[in-house]
Amino acid sequence: MGKKLTKREEDYSKWYNELVVKADLAENSSVRGCMVIKPYGYAIWEKMQNQLDQMFKETGHQNAYFPLFVPKSLFEAEEKNAEGFAKECAIVTHYRLKSDIKNPGKLIVDEKAKLEEELIVRPTSEAVIWNTYKNWIQSYRDLPILINQWANVVRWEMRTRLFLRTAEFLWQEGHTAHETKKEAINEAILINDIYAEFAENHMGIPVIKGLKSDSEKFAGAEETYCIEALMQDGKSLQAGTSHFLGQNFAKAFDVKFASKNGDLDYVWATSWGVSTRLMGALVMTHSDDNGLVLPPKLAPIQVVIIPIYKSKEEFNAVESYIEPILEKLKSKGISFLFDKRDTHKPGFKFNEHEIKGVPIRIVAGPKDIENSSLEIFRRDKMEKETINFDDVFSRIDFLITDIQNNLFERAQSFKNANIRNANTYQEFKDLIKNKGGFVSAHWDGTAETEEIIKKETKATIRCIPIDGVKEKGNCIYSKKPSEQRVLFAKAY
Amino acid sequence: MGKKLTKREEDYSKWYNELVVKADLAENSSVRGCMVIKPYGYAIWEKMQNQLDQMFKETGHQNAYFPLFVPKSLFEAEEKNAEGFAKECAIVTHYRLKSDIKNPGKLIVDEKAKLEEELIVRPTSEAVIWNTYKNWIQSYRDLPILINQWANVVRWEMRTRLFLRTAEFLWQEGHTAHETKKEAINEAILINDIYAEFAENHMGIPVIKGLKSDSEKFAGAEETYCIEALMQDGKSLQAGTSHFLGQNFAKAFDVKFASKNGDLDYVWATSWGVSTRLMGALVMTHSDDNGLVLPPKLAPIQVVIIPIYKSKEEFNAVESYIEPILEKLKSKGISFLFDKRDTHKPGFKFNEHEIKGVPIRIVAGPKDIENSSLEIFRRDKMEKETINFDDVFSRIDFLITDIQNNLFERAQSFKNANIRNANTYQEFKDLIKNKGGFVSAHWDGTAETEEIIKKETKATIRCIPIDGVKEKGNCIYSKKPSEQRVLFAKAY
Repeated sequence: MGKKLTKREEDYSKWYNELVVKADLAENSSVRGCMVIKPYGYAIWEKMQNQLDQMFKETGHQNAYFPLFVPKSLFEAEEKNAEGFAKECAIVTHYRLKSDIKNPGKLIVDEKAKLEEELIVRPTSEAVIWNTYKNWIQSYRDLPILINQWANVVRWEMRTRLFLRTAEFLWQEGHTAHETKKEAINEAILINDIYAEFAENHMGIPVIKGLKSDSEKFAGAEETYCIEALMQDGKSLQAGTSHFLGQNFAKAFDVKFASKNGDLDYVWATSWGVSTRLMGALVMTHSDDNGLVLPPKLAPIQVVIIPIYKSKEEFNAVESYIEPILEKLKSKGISFLFDKRDTHKPGFKFNEHEIKGVPIRIVAGPKDIENSSLEIFRRDKMEKETINFDDVFSRIDFLITDIQNNLFERAQSFKNANIRNANTYQEFKDLIKNKGGFVSAHWDGTAETEEIIKKETKATIRCIPIDGVKEKGNCIYSKKPSEQRVLFAKAY
Repeated sequence: MGKKLTKREEDYSKWYNELVVKADLAENSSVRGCMVIKPYGYAIWEKMQNQLDQMFKETGHQNAYFPLFVPKSLFEAEEKNAEGFAKECAIVTHYRLKSDIKNPGKLIVDEKAKLEEELIVRPTSEAVIWNTYKNWIQSYRDLPILINQWANVVRWEMRTRLFLRTAEFLWQEGHTAHETKKEAINEAILINDIYAEFAENHMGIPVIKGLKSDSEKFAGAEETYCIEALMQDGKSLQAGTSHFLGQNFAKAFDVKFASKNGDLDYVWATSWGVSTRLMGALVMTHSDDNGLVLPPKLAPIQVVIIPIYKSKEEFNAVESYIEPILEKLKSKGISFLFDKRDTHKPGFKFNEHEIKGVPIRIVAGPKDIENSSLEIFRRDKMEKETINFDDVFSRIDFLITDIQNNLFERAQSFKNANIRNANTYQEFKDLIKNKGGFVSAHWDGTAETEEIIKKETKATIRCIPIDGVKEKGNCIYSKKPSEQRVLFAKAY
């Protein structure tokens, strides 16, 4: 396992970077800004995918797949969207390599194989999808279209960090088409609610649901709904977004439908996505100085069983003692690992599974056989206890629920303790600088004020909370009237 | 639904192209050579993925994810592999667009944002993966590595056809690393066996397992194991390949391991994949002039229920009559659709579900209520019968199994009837020209002979069958001695 993990209070950012690698989640690749998601990290992502996919399907969505490439002429059709992504596009210009005559065994781009029109590697798929929907939609009978795709996208980022900001990332992107504005807005809200439910009930991450300010919303959207989560270092992380796109893409791609009474109208749209960035949120919500901490619902291994023995005979005795536990875990659908590697000592195994965040560890040795006991350890609280052999399943059942709940409640308490009101700009600046977390303050609703505050404090408006109390007041900066407090924070 | 489907005997290729679109499986996109996989087609692919994924995991493989891009210098490291794919590479050369001053609202490639090193969009991932494995492997304790990834790849094809040959396609690619040659060969064979089992037991496609000749094997492989399937038009389709890569990639990327006795040696490798091409094989094995025919194990909708009624009262009566069937289908995990759309007549629905290959159709109307009966239709044989209401579940259970078996057996008979021996070159040419199918013939083992036969007849060696009888003879072309017959065919 190598050197010890940096402590969070020493250097949070370094702790994160080390942890992602040491816990075997991901690593940087030889391709600038692109990561390799390792099997253990990918297994967590798969669990997240499965759960989200089920939630999408239960609400009537279907999966499909659209091309990786977007021809430039389609890409630029919706101008705001194009402008928003133009600076971070990977562009395919050629389609063939040839032998380099000067360097035998090497290849060079074949200049004769230049594309007539450049292809953009999708940073998001609205353009290519709306250009397709155009052919699918003639009348109200063809609506709604409720489609999701699981895909990779590329946004050329200059400063990348594993999971949080990578040039290529994995995500799901939903793209829906509707008859009415109201229906489309309801869809965007439904999905944002699904994201919140998933974050809280499965990832154990409490979130705040809100709307983005104009300057923070998705390029091409009328409204962006979002869920914001608070990381341990007091910075906010945008964990999911759901956009009401109005008729912008329908107009850009000329997608009209005949309504029930025969009128032709542009179609209303939404798009929405969460990505492998959620892996970063998971790490930064629950983990500690000993490594990763995983909520049982997303843990690839929920229970690890480690035998203690000195001889082959002792090992055999311990294995027989444990055997019925393994069988029952299997039948109960609890994922487990019996770590019987003889190449590693128990201490090494303890450390490895701690750093990988396995929620429950069971240890059994000759003394346990003698006493009909087991040692059971919960990763979230780093607490161990000795239990009676017969109580093992009731204890595991309890712990799986209790660890899941405890992680959420711990994060919820932290979040609640880190939302603070500021009533003056001085108070605001002090809080952002010295306390971090969310600062709830009145804002005059202008992009100018938002921009000045951002420049002076590095804090941005994370969201206009949907469930926020409507409380009139005056903007902390301009003193102009405001209808509601909004949440500011420094953000990932 | 528009015009009728072209008949297979009129124009098989046209029939295929029309069917894929009419059955809502896929369509061409605005991006040259790339397809849109529509929800119905994608639902079939998801079922295939789930089954394969389970089979891979049961044999100890884990999923992971590696970058989409391969830097040119890595791509060219394994020379044979690079040479094999160089002519069909999409190449990223720039990472930014900018506004086109001459055309307001349009974008152009920003020439200042030229990559120092071009990136190849992966046509396959050996290079990027072996460059990663290099850091993961030090000793025999790190082996084997058994990893699979589900991903998109791009091979710039000039002539594309939906599913069969597209510039971008979806696939899984396994990449494993082993201590010994024997272990790696066994892995390649294990996977080829899994592919065969999947094709036969789930897709209902009989296959022949074999080895590729040198000129047909994967660029960079020592041996390519494959499964070959026979399409209805007598052409062969390579349905899956599993490569024993020897130490070629380990040498190209300098991946050595310390063995148990301390020696340093290069690692042994395999790679293997199946793709959305399998969707094409599925269509061309079972479907008929009425549309798609699906094996129940892969059908997104296994049973469709269509009500017959003239009034709202009749509809309500039929719905109540059917209700218990729907509930029981749900509890049994049989996927179904109660098609109660009032915008379409029964005849339209019959036709739509026939063309989409729904295995079982149940129809119920007022007369059925009177007689306690139901009409049940099986898509594979286009046969309908009237059954007693109480027999519906035993009949559905029977049909699900029987249709699955019937499709396999029908395809198996067809395949067996279309493997013919040729003992002279004249006989061979006659068979290839007039009968199609597989022609089993002696071959002298040289690439020269293979090339001449290909030029003269368009038939290639599909495989050297693994289960083939060892029968000595003389090459049909050169008359030189041969140890075993090989299978020739025209191929997709």
